[in-house]
Amino acid sequence: MIRDGLAGSAGPHVFVDSLDAMVVDEHDLAHLSKSLRMRDGDPLTASDGKGAWRHGRFDSSGIIEPEGTVQRVEAREEQLTVAFSLVKGNKPELVIQKLTEIGIDRIVVLAAERSIVKWDHTKVERNHERWKRIIREAAMQSHRVRLPELTAVVPALEWLAQPGVAGAHFGAPEIGVASRSVAIGPEGGWAPSEVGAIVESVSLGDTVLRAETAAIAAGVLLCAAARGARFDGR
Amino acid sequence: MIRDGLAGSAGPHVFVDSLDAMVVDEHDLAHLSKSLRMRDGDPLTASDGKGAWRHGRFDSSGIIEPEGTVQRVEAREEQLTVAFSLVKGNKPELVIQKLTEIGIDRIVVLAAERSIVKWDHTKVERNHERWKRIIREAAMQSHRVRLPELTAVVPALEWLAQPGVAGAHFGAPEIGVASRSVAIGPEGGWAPSEVGAIVESVSLGDTVLRAETAAIAAGVLLCAAARGARFDGR
Repeated sequence: MIRDGLAGSAGPHVFVDSLDAMVVDEHDLAHLSKSLRMRDGDPLTASDGKGAWRHGRFDSSGIIEPEGTVQRVEAREEQLTVAFSLVKGNKPELVIQKLTEIGIDRIVVLAAERSIVKWDHTKVERNHERWKRIIREAAMQSHRVRLPELTAVVPALEWLAQPGVAGAHFGAPEIGVASRSVAIGPEGGWAPSEVGAIVESVSLGDTVLRAETAAIAAGVLLCAAARGARFDGR
Repeated sequence: MIRDGLAGSAGPHVFVDSLDAMVVDEHDLAHLSKSLRMRDGDPLTASDGKGAWRHGRFDSSGIIEPEGTVQRVEAREEQLTVAFSLVKGNKPELVIQKLTEIGIDRIVVLAAERSIVKWDHTKVERNHERWKRIIREAAMQSHRVRLPELTAVVPALEWLAQPGVAGAHFGAPEIGVASRSVAIGPEGGWAPSEVGAIVESVSLGDTVLRAETAAIAAGVLLCAAARGARFDGR
């Protein structure tokens, strides 16, 4: 089992560019000193977002005093990926935040045929930056040492054709112990061309889930499967 | 396996008081005719929220024309229950909506020692009504034939002492195939007295989850366990 989360470690968790000279950026410093009311000398953990981390002591200057050596958490052999479809008016932020907390390695935002949303390049870029910020904040909150990768926005038809990607589909077999990558359609479901592109299908349970709920459920089940859960016990 | 969800059935799903004389209330009628743009004769399913349901045809008068006989979905032998702690500023609505979609049978809102929120009787009642409305809407959306029970607000100390209730705790064994009831502490964790009251502990994974995410993850894993998933495969 690989633990990408420093739960139980003392104090809050921050991301820094370098673990040799640990400098907290302005935004995070305000968070630590104001919201969390940290005092000089309070313990925390810092990570480079790439699997390495280190204990340290808070200092109001923003320069973290290191404690002990740099430690590394190995990456999963196979990334856990959840792809979900952008829909007008939905809240991709919620899904991105939750998938980060849950422990997913790669988050993919899809433009499905029934996604409705048609974004130009500028809008994609602006949202990409915002989503990366959400990932960073959620990863701090959940003490992750590896920031999930964000891939946005990819045509669903292209994504579904990739090997190993399972399309979520009601009534299909449940997520299996070998499942690593699930794609969730938009509220209106996959279009016929997309259904045609799906090689493998998985089900997420017995109820009809909103697209955002399906994405979160897929994340929970994929992580459980990677921890060794078996869903084939019916 | 018990399916409390009419996925794949034709048309939207509504709740009615009686399946003999199926009358859609004003609010739902507006939703069906305006948002979903249903026309006279369009198919739908109606349920009494207690396990019985029936096919029917929409009519703009609000009186559904029945089709076929009343069908019943048996209740689970043991209810699946998720209890979560109220915290100031959090969004119990999101948790209640998601647990309903996912298929949980009973939703319990706890007042934990670190919940901070102290609600008077009027506020509890007002929220109770609002939460029941959220449950009803989510159950329509997810085509459930059984409305989850709502219990709110119960002192955590009292709830945790009940047999069969497992307190979520990082590092504990994973939700097991026999798990039916999980309680989630507030963001600040259980207070020592509450920890003392916990008989059984379960873990929800390897990352640090926000309280709301933990409640949703518990719902997903409990439903998977009830479908026969095994989480002890490490």
